[in-house]
Amino acid sequence: MALPKDYAGQRCSLSRALEVVGERWTLLIMRDAFFGVRRFGDFAAHLGVPRAVLTERLESLREAGVLAETRGSHGYGEYVLTDKGLSLWPVVRDLLSWGDEYYSANGPRRVFQHVRDAGIIAADGACATCGSAVPPADLLMLPGPGYDEPGDDDFVSKTLTTAHRLLEPIRGH
Amino acid sequence: MALPKDYAGQRCSLSRALEVVGERWTLLIMRDAFFGVRRFGDFAAHLGVPRAVLTERLESLREAGVLAETRGSHGYGEYVLTDKGLSLWPVVRDLLSWGDEYYSANGPRRVFQHVRDAGIIAADGACATCGSAVPPADLLMLPGPGYDEPGDDDFVSKTLTTAHRLLEPIRGH
Repeated sequence: MALPKDYAGQRCSLSRALEVVGERWTLLIMRDAFFGVRRFGDFAAHLGVPRAVLTERLESLREAGVLAETRGSHGYGEYVLTDKGLSLWPVVRDLLSWGDEYYSANGPRRVFQHVRDAGIIAADGACATCGSAVPPADLLMLPGPGYDEPGDDDFVSKTLTTAHRLLEPIRGH
Repeated sequence: MALPKDYAGQRCSLSRALEVVGERWTLLIMRDAFFGVRRFGDFAAHLGVPRAVLTERLESLREAGVLAETRGSHGYGEYVLTDKGLSLWPVVRDLLSWGDEYYSANGPRRVFQHVRDAGIIAADGACATCGSAVPPADLLMLPGPGYDEPGDDDFVSKTLTTAHRLLEPIRGH
């Protein structure tokens, strides 16, 4: 590690949060976990992150209690979001919205829809139909107006070219 | 720089957002800007970040249009949040809430209150009195039940031991 993880002398809750999710690649791994990615090989293929870095980040998220390691079907190890991890959804969603607003000329790359009433989710996370803050498990993610066809042909990228419910497992490897 | 800033091959809006605010220290600098810190010396004293790193981060936020450099009173250069920077408030607030929830045994370290109706801001950013999402300029920040007296005696830390309205300038240096 080139940099220490902790912020010496900083006792604010933001520093603590960044000690857990502020490292390079970590929030992209979390995003993929919300999308339904669970297996090491799928994170690696979708993110293109060096495997040593991915190993270190997954282990660090597991130690922090944000991901849990489980034994999935066919005996593969899988990483699943815990409640503590799920409660980071607003952070991921807000960063996506902000990136869409300022860096996507044709509009949002991904649109989220409340499964129960088909309401579109606004930038603040509220459903346009019922007004409630919708948990990720009740969200359908669809390609939006700013969506580009991915250049990558990994299984996760291909799965996400069409509507996909968040947290529903995506298993390629 | 030990690491490249960009995430090669990642075209998601989250990657773009992290290219701007995902570097080490950057979100702590943004937090301080929301608190009202504007001057290089105040960021440096409050954060304890190496000055070369602070210079690089401030310049990078200015280039991204998140901070603007202005000439403040007494001719000091000051960094002020632009609209693009202000729209990152939900990200900072969500990370603070998450850190408070999981890493502050005695409750939130900071509490936010809607200036107009004295409503306390819930974890999702809504005012408990009027229900609206309150912009940072209308928020009063107070020490919460989990607040520790800071060990640091820099001007920013001392200012924030009592109620302070967000964005209201804090100028020590």
